[in-house]
Amino acid sequence: MHVEKISSLQNPRVKRLVRLRDRGPRDEMGVFLVEGFRAISRAMERGVPLTEVYFCRDWFLGGNEDALVARASEAGAEVVELGRDAFAKVAYRDRPEGLLAVVAQWRHEPGDLKLGEQPFLLVVEAIEKPGNLGTLLRGADAAGVDAVIVCDPVTDLFNPNVVRSSTGVLFSMPVALGTTAEVTGFLRQRGIRSVATTPRGSCLHTEADLRGPLALVMGSEQFGLSEKWLAAADVQVRIPMAGQADSLNVAMAAIVTLFEAVRQRSPSPGAPVAP
Amino acid sequence: MHVEKISSLQNPRVKRLVRLRDRGPRDEMGVFLVEGFRAISRAMERGVPLTEVYFCRDWFLGGNEDALVARASEAGAEVVELGRDAFAKVAYRDRPEGLLAVVAQWRHEPGDLKLGEQPFLLVVEAIEKPGNLGTLLRGADAAGVDAVIVCDPVTDLFNPNVVRSSTGVLFSMPVALGTTAEVTGFLRQRGIRSVATTPRGSCLHTEADLRGPLALVMGSEQFGLSEKWLAAADVQVRIPMAGQADSLNVAMAAIVTLFEAVRQRSPSPGAPVAP
Repeated sequence: MHVEKISSLQNPRVKRLVRLRDRGPRDEMGVFLVEGFRAISRAMERGVPLTEVYFCRDWFLGGNEDALVARASEAGAEVVELGRDAFAKVAYRDRPEGLLAVVAQWRHEPGDLKLGEQPFLLVVEAIEKPGNLGTLLRGADAAGVDAVIVCDPVTDLFNPNVVRSSTGVLFSMPVALGTTAEVTGFLRQRGIRSVATTPRGSCLHTEADLRGPLALVMGSEQFGLSEKWLAAADVQVRIPMAGQADSLNVAMAAIVTLFEAVRQRSPSPGAPVAP
Repeated sequence: MHVEKISSLQNPRVKRLVRLRDRGPRDEMGVFLVEGFRAISRAMERGVPLTEVYFCRDWFLGGNEDALVARASEAGAEVVELGRDAFAKVAYRDRPEGLLAVVAQWRHEPGDLKLGEQPFLLVVEAIEKPGNLGTLLRGADAAGVDAVIVCDPVTDLFNPNVVRSSTGVLFSMPVALGTTAEVTGFLRQRGIRSVATTPRGSCLHTEADLRGPLALVMGSEQFGLSEKWLAAADVQVRIPMAGQADSLNVAMAAIVTLFEAVRQRSPSPGAPVAP
């Protein structure tokens, strides 16, 4: 393969990669960054096309990076070699691994989702911290959710910390975006029950029926679910809290509710228990 | 109150505070650092005695910090004012809030724990990341665990990131330390069943009986539970994993199992479900 090499920190490509750390340029150019061996491998495994791949052997950790770069090139990515300092400048991680890819953004609406008879969805509203959004995606993946709907996004899906903290789930989990009105309308139209988790819930998450077509709905870290969502939800549930009020963050609360749904939806939902 | 003021970055106290970020000096001096308004408030609310409190009004966020410093002084803490640069040097957080306390370490053994008839314990083995240990403490608090036992510690309990990520639970949750042999011996002697969570578990976590005297046991991020623990545990359970193998980290897996135990242990463990 033909490989261009860039050493200058002033090179326009280097400057463009640095700008892609910010949402504005990312959305304008319609692309985002994927850094490191594991994340790039996972994107490729899931058939996500890489537009460009930047590498620097000085930073390689010795995990067969050259083979990965060659595979990316074969799959159609433009491959560019960077000098040590240039790579350090474009890397957003503390410990660069010498691999950075540019990937085209995607955007789906709820109506684009291909869902079966008994959809199992996670809806998250206005999540602020990229790390939480990534962890929510992981939790949804672990629980076998069919799709995640991000409602009234605050953090964008392609923030480097979402990419990192989702540990590759971003590349495999169907994710749709929409406003609260769009998403509540979609769920109603499809006959999908919405179960909102809120400290004000009238019953415990274990007392609600979480089988059948289901959307679990989680609110933002700071404000919880909006009044609109609370009014629109078919059921409001709460997780019993033994400790201080903030001991369960949104990602932990989601995983508790998701796995209670997994239990109820399984053919053998566990040994019957009596006090 | 009499308040000494320090501006020099070379002051021995300033240098000592910086050294306390590392475990060696921390263990040698038998103290640790608590930074920020919320963490220090929580320590005081829980009656944890502060030895020294350092403050710098230049960094205050305007949340009644002076009153907190006065209360700490009344409660017996030595109060020292720092100059702007000196405080920036001792602060370990990215955004200093102008408040840093020195607190004496504590150490309990499993035998020190005061437990009732039906203890509900979380045992964690060799956790490596301070953030995970703090999150595990939060999860244990949320689930109403009586105590956490940290087995063969890798991360020390008083690492600044454990303090921060535990959001104050470190100050209220009884935590004991011990070796695997000590902890397994303790559980056996007290008649507490140990339930280990491992991908190799022979039944699902929802199929095991998690009522009665119970210790849930979680292994390290990288290696899971040691062979010793797997051999010693009364039951091995696994969480059903729908997605990629690493979508549940140790803290998320713990919270799923902890809240299944909460469900089973509650007087009304939820609506009966049938497929």
